[in-house]
Amino acid sequence: MSTSERLIREHQIEQTLTTPIGQVVTLGGWVQRRRDFGSVIFVDLRDRSGLVQLVFDRARGTSESAMAAADKLRNEFVIVARGTVAARDEASINPKLETGHIEIVVHDVVVENTAKNPPFYIQDGVEVDETVRLRYRYLDLRRPEMQRMLMLRHQVIRAFRAFLDDNGFIEMETPILTKSTPEGARDYLVPSRLQAGEFYALPQSPQIFKQLLMVSGMERYYQVARCFRDEDLRADRQPEFTQLDIETSFLSAEALQSMMEMMVQKVLRDVAGIEIEIPFMRLPYHEAMERYGSDKPDLRYDMAFVNLEETLKGTDFRVFADPLAAGGTVKALVAPGVASYSRKQLDDLVAFVKPYGLKGLAYIAVAQDGGMKSSIGKFFTEEQLAEIVRVCEAKPGDLILIAAASRKEVHAALGALRVHLAEELGLADPNVYKFLWVTDFPLLSYDEEEGRYVAEHHPFTMPRYEDVDLLTTSPEKVKAQAYDMVLNGFEIGGGSMRIYRRDIQEKMFAALGFTPEEAYDKFGFLLDAFEYGTPPHGGIAFGIDRIVMLLGHGKSLRDVIAFPKTSSGTDLLMEAPSTVSQAQLDMLHLSIKKK
Amino acid sequence: MSTSERLIREHQIEQTLTTPIGQVVTLGGWVQRRRDFGSVIFVDLRDRSGLVQLVFDRARGTSESAMAAADKLRNEFVIVARGTVAARDEASINPKLETGHIEIVVHDVVVENTAKNPPFYIQDGVEVDETVRLRYRYLDLRRPEMQRMLMLRHQVIRAFRAFLDDNGFIEMETPILTKSTPEGARDYLVPSRLQAGEFYALPQSPQIFKQLLMVSGMERYYQVARCFRDEDLRADRQPEFTQLDIETSFLSAEALQSMMEMMVQKVLRDVAGIEIEIPFMRLPYHEAMERYGSDKPDLRYDMAFVNLEETLKGTDFRVFADPLAAGGTVKALVAPGVASYSRKQLDDLVAFVKPYGLKGLAYIAVAQDGGMKSSIGKFFTEEQLAEIVRVCEAKPGDLILIAAASRKEVHAALGALRVHLAEELGLADPNVYKFLWVTDFPLLSYDEEEGRYVAEHHPFTMPRYEDVDLLTTSPEKVKAQAYDMVLNGFEIGGGSMRIYRRDIQEKMFAALGFTPEEAYDKFGFLLDAFEYGTPPHGGIAFGIDRIVMLLGHGKSLRDVIAFPKTSSGTDLLMEAPSTVSQAQLDMLHLSIKKK
Repeated sequence: MSTSERLIREHQIEQTLTTPIGQVVTLGGWVQRRRDFGSVIFVDLRDRSGLVQLVFDRARGTSESAMAAADKLRNEFVIVARGTVAARDEASINPKLETGHIEIVVHDVVVENTAKNPPFYIQDGVEVDETVRLRYRYLDLRRPEMQRMLMLRHQVIRAFRAFLDDNGFIEMETPILTKSTPEGARDYLVPSRLQAGEFYALPQSPQIFKQLLMVSGMERYYQVARCFRDEDLRADRQPEFTQLDIETSFLSAEALQSMMEMMVQKVLRDVAGIEIEIPFMRLPYHEAMERYGSDKPDLRYDMAFVNLEETLKGTDFRVFADPLAAGGTVKALVAPGVASYSRKQLDDLVAFVKPYGLKGLAYIAVAQDGGMKSSIGKFFTEEQLAEIVRVCEAKPGDLILIAAASRKEVHAALGALRVHLAEELGLADPNVYKFLWVTDFPLLSYDEEEGRYVAEHHPFTMPRYEDVDLLTTSPEKVKAQAYDMVLNGFEIGGGSMRIYRRDIQEKMFAALGFTPEEAYDKFGFLLDAFEYGTPPHGGIAFGIDRIVMLLGHGKSLRDVIAFPKTSSGTDLLMEAPSTVSQAQLDMLHLSIKKK
Repeated sequence: MSTSERLIREHQIEQTLTTPIGQVVTLGGWVQRRRDFGSVIFVDLRDRSGLVQLVFDRARGTSESAMAAADKLRNEFVIVARGTVAARDEASINPKLETGHIEIVVHDVVVENTAKNPPFYIQDGVEVDETVRLRYRYLDLRRPEMQRMLMLRHQVIRAFRAFLDDNGFIEMETPILTKSTPEGARDYLVPSRLQAGEFYALPQSPQIFKQLLMVSGMERYYQVARCFRDEDLRADRQPEFTQLDIETSFLSAEALQSMMEMMVQKVLRDVAGIEIEIPFMRLPYHEAMERYGSDKPDLRYDMAFVNLEETLKGTDFRVFADPLAAGGTVKALVAPGVASYSRKQLDDLVAFVKPYGLKGLAYIAVAQDGGMKSSIGKFFTEEQLAEIVRVCEAKPGDLILIAAASRKEVHAALGALRVHLAEELGLADPNVYKFLWVTDFPLLSYDEEEGRYVAEHHPFTMPRYEDVDLLTTSPEKVKAQAYDMVLNGFEIGGGSMRIYRRDIQEKMFAALGFTPEEAYDKFGFLLDAFEYGTPPHGGIAFGIDRIVMLLGHGKSLRDVIAFPKTSSGTDLLMEAPSTVSQAQLDMLHLSIKKK
């Protein structure tokens, strides 16, 4: 490990591809593999840009000290090597390697650092327990697939920025140390040292700040913003995540959506060479739920629900009749080409929907010859079954699955079943990108637990103009000027036009059950701001982590975040969170409660 | 305030400059001023892009409803107006306004929002108490100078990113919720809900993460990173600030510095049209202190100290002799052209240096005729005084100021006096940008209070190779491979080569007084990481807020941050920090200590 003779890297490995044969290069990187043939030693050298073969061969000019160093090299040693680019002879060309037609005949080498045997191989496709990957994240990130993913992340964000910069948007930074806001998820808090007993909160999003920037006349704002939510982490949530946060003044919802479509189109083209069509389909929330049981339907396949309420009106089959009488529904899903599912396979489908509150699933299998096999054959005539098949537009070989229960249960169950079946049947082509807007969300929903209405999006969402008066009389009927951008079954962006007049905001707060005093106590600064000339405005926020995951075909958000946390919020590498000293607690005027 | 008829803005005001006369535009913005001439009403409309005059005139086609609306308009009302671009007649052209040769004859207008009288005028150069500006930040940010500053900030960051993107750097995000690290400033802590009694810390910088990214082979990293320090805020500090954080592998310090010079050169050229010369001057820390009494000297003017130790050797004048005998120094500063300073002005200079520990200042004023007037004339011969003048290279009209005390006191006092005089004398031209590198910092300094050595930069800074062994024997003599970029008296960036070998890092921790167990307890993950093939690496971090402030000629960091905090860490607009509910505290397992 000599550092007395310094050798400084001058070239990246990919540059050897364009270096003339016979020229000298100085490369630096990691030993990927070493093969020792006695008088000749081959070393595959890896850097961020690629892999190339180094040859240590006294007969071809390698120095004695380099031969001695090569003898001791092991995987993941860091070296800097100077040598001559040479063409390989025909027989030893490696077509699997981009640089496989050349090799570097080493003159001198400096071993910058040694390496212990890593806990897993530094290559793609290795099966490693994720806790080990996270504990040794600095080694996990050496694997080419992780480097590709973080590079993709960089390129995606860069492409978003380029579009926004070109369209008059200004990136502006908003505070991370801010105020705890009611009406959202749980805040992370930061105790103040200077103001005893008081706390900052980390922002769940820059929502209020970006609205204030519109009040301040900035007109077009964006930010690649870190957001924080102290939620009970599901398998694929992170306590901190990155949002592309956008807000505009004076634009209509339609104009904003259209601009966002152009942005996404350009980003996919520039970053991944993917062509998508704009404008995107617009699907009202109500229709999305009725047809796909989801407010973020995957439309790479249709498999829309078929409403059988008309067809089955007056049936005396209790399994259908009872839910219908109770105001529920009966809907069918046509699974293409799987009429021949076995009893076991059908049982599995029933087991799949049970957690969603269904008691069972009826089925009609349409055989290739047009014959029908059905679980409800005893209760319906051939003609009645044929009528269902006709209404469902099922073809020979298809399997019709029928659910009857409350709307909510049927939509949830069939919605999940639809996604499940599409995956089973390979209908969700990972190389197809199907975008749509879901629009016309309800503004409010009634929260039984809290005994009041809560905002579906957030309390600053503008109702449709024609619905403003309903805020006072029938809050549940008010539709929001809100829209989600959906890609392949994931909500990748969500936004809305915002309330920009104090009178409407006050009506909204009243609908949420706040007294005027409570409203002013919580959001007085915003109500005040609305009185000094606030322009009409609206915006959207995109989930960067999810977008990169979808484009990079990652399996989890943890694959697109350099240093992610586990589902319990732990950073396994740094071992955060951790205990702190009594002196630190004293300075923050805090004590920890004993359990 | 009619919203029944919708009118959507289609043009920005600056677009009217290129719109043909006679065409119809739809503009939106704020009422800057309204002048009522009865049958004709003039309104200056402001948006982010500029200002234009709207004319409401029934005779020229303004609708009745628009005339009625114009009647009620007041400053800061938000309107959208449709009208025809018209040339003004010769007499009414306003040369002070970019759009002063045209006006918009309004057909229709929609008042989107009214406005109360703002607490201060929305225009530049108004004298407003800063607490009022911060309380109504959304109005303060409407002022053109604040909009310009935030736009400049955007452009500066964008230009930095463009250079780095073009040079193979990848922007990578590192966690905000991380681990409390010893050896830095005070951390902001975030209590964990899921792990009772444990805390995350907000990062003081991404230092450790960027080093881990180098371990992971990312080679060139950057991030526009938010950093947090819970320090006692001086007048111009912010609890959160933005850093352009950069790290590279395999580059020498010289190569990195050279790249950074090219970056800064390009950013200044692209953003501000400022041409600067590279390479920058390199000034070793020791020389910077000896000549300018500062490790970040403003070199727009020289005014270097003159060392009089040789000249005054053997003097029996006690004021000089005593400090020299005690190992101190005598140095002079030549203030050009102010030999005629009055007794009062000279007294003010003495008062200025007293807080730095000097008892007084001796002076020699060189009159235009070459005659001398001196406070020490009684103790020195004419020849002796002339010799001092000669050594100081003082010209007729100059004033020589002489300080004698310990090195530390003389440097601090004369360093501050130098800056003070340069400002008084107008030597610090705000339109000159004088960059330099200060290098060869000491690695460690002895902390009397803690009774041990502490890192001057941070504990990961690489010593000069030739000094590694001194770490164990004479820590105070070790020079660091560290460098600061200095602009006009401000440190705008600081960095170093990092330790990348476990043995050296362990020596460093030992020099800091850690036992091996303590070192591993605090930084075990990093020591471990160094054993798996860590490349040589180093980096730098630039203070974005300060750079923007210097380029935009702002008076304070608060002028370049959209939502800054006061010196007590308060956000006056949001009223953060604030109290939180008992339920929130309970969930975090915390209680607040009574005083």
